[in-house]
Amino acid sequence: MKLKSFAKRMNIESDFYSFNPLYSSFLQSGVDSNDYETLCLKKGEVLYFQRFNRQGFYFIIEGLAKMELSHPTPRVIRLCKRGDMVGYGSWLVPKTENYKLMALQDTTVQFWTKDASESLQRKSTLVNQLLIEHLAQVILHKDERIASLQGETVENRVAHLLLWLAKNFGRQTAQGLLIDISLDRDCMAQLAGTIPVTLARVLTYFEQEKIILREKRKVLVLNIQELEKKTF
Amino acid sequence: MKLKSFAKRMNIESDFYSFNPLYSSFLQSGVDSNDYETLCLKKGEVLYFQRFNRQGFYFIIEGLAKMELSHPTPRVIRLCKRGDMVGYGSWLVPKTENYKLMALQDTTVQFWTKDASESLQRKSTLVNQLLIEHLAQVILHKDERIASLQGETVENRVAHLLLWLAKNFGRQTAQGLLIDISLDRDCMAQLAGTIPVTLARVLTYFEQEKIILREKRKVLVLNIQELEKKTF
Repeated sequence: MKLKSFAKRMNIESDFYSFNPLYSSFLQSGVDSNDYETLCLKKGEVLYFQRFNRQGFYFIIEGLAKMELSHPTPRVIRLCKRGDMVGYGSWLVPKTENYKLMALQDTTVQFWTKDASESLQRKSTLVNQLLIEHLAQVILHKDERIASLQGETVENRVAHLLLWLAKNFGRQTAQGLLIDISLDRDCMAQLAGTIPVTLARVLTYFEQEKIILREKRKVLVLNIQELEKKTF
Repeated sequence: MKLKSFAKRMNIESDFYSFNPLYSSFLQSGVDSNDYETLCLKKGEVLYFQRFNRQGFYFIIEGLAKMELSHPTPRVIRLCKRGDMVGYGSWLVPKTENYKLMALQDTTVQFWTKDASESLQRKSTLVNQLLIEHLAQVILHKDERIASLQGETVENRVAHLLLWLAKNFGRQTAQGLLIDISLDRDCMAQLAGTIPVTLARVLTYFEQEKIILREKRKVLVLNIQELEKKTF
């Protein structure tokens, strides 16, 4: 894990600035360079949320990472992508010792202290409003995730996961929507709330039904309407 | 659904005031009586989040209710009890049309408008801070719920649900921890991410193992350590 060079950082951050309204409201409210720190995680590197012994949170500036909750057993609970804000739970210590982030691609994150955030909130109504809206949005996403994990059958849950991946990482190709990330079977099975062997069985079934096509580690969604029907 | 009488309201609210720091920070920051509305739901009554056509959220002042997300199929996603704050998603319309609350016991809720909340946030740093901490706490709870629903087997998920119920609604008795609420099988099965017949099978298995004892619609946890082991 290392700090990004200044020039490279400025490039990424100015791009992210126009992409994420909450982030741009932070920067527009006047920040000190001590308020945040930009880090690059190489693929496979792990970031423990409490590493700084400081309360705060992370913006995912670019890349892809999986978030694991280690209690009671290690489980991937979400994938984090560009624009996501993670680790706000550390505002409420000490539970966040159970959280870690592992980079699935080279990933740039930015750590903001709670103090810095609170000072910006005091200065700007917009920061406040966007922060609360962001947290409410996260809650809505998690509710959808809970509802999908409550799907009665494993087929339902796998279909939900594939739809979510297609929506967030899908790239249109001539054949269909390519889920353009490599996820290992363990990680996918955990996200679908099942075990790898059952996941493989369901993927084979979806392939026989011509709903998906597997290409190495990637999945191509051929028929999104049929996939939606499999969610309930 | 009806408005509470003034005297009864004052009683409940003053009790809740000392119980919930966020709520008391709201009242201490100076509110107008138009800023909120107290409602009593009889057992079985349904509250649609968008009923007021106004953005806002609800405090659960007393009682117990289940929250349902109706898309893509109706599912109970959580149980709401005294002290919970629900419906903040309506700050971000239009998705909340999919949410509703059904009272499992007589339940008192209080609706606060988004405008009122934002005005209090501007007046008070404490309101702001407690609101954000509350949302972060909700996110942590949902992460735990997601991790538990990702349990590999139905036994794992049912054990998680029983533990959560014991923690939140358990009453110590001579025999063990009585989960002191009546939940129908459909609701319990949905919360555990399974179907009623499978839930019944798992409960019978836990009963044979002397981990729980069923008494009519209630569950008595006899051996909480063994129940914890069943979660992973």
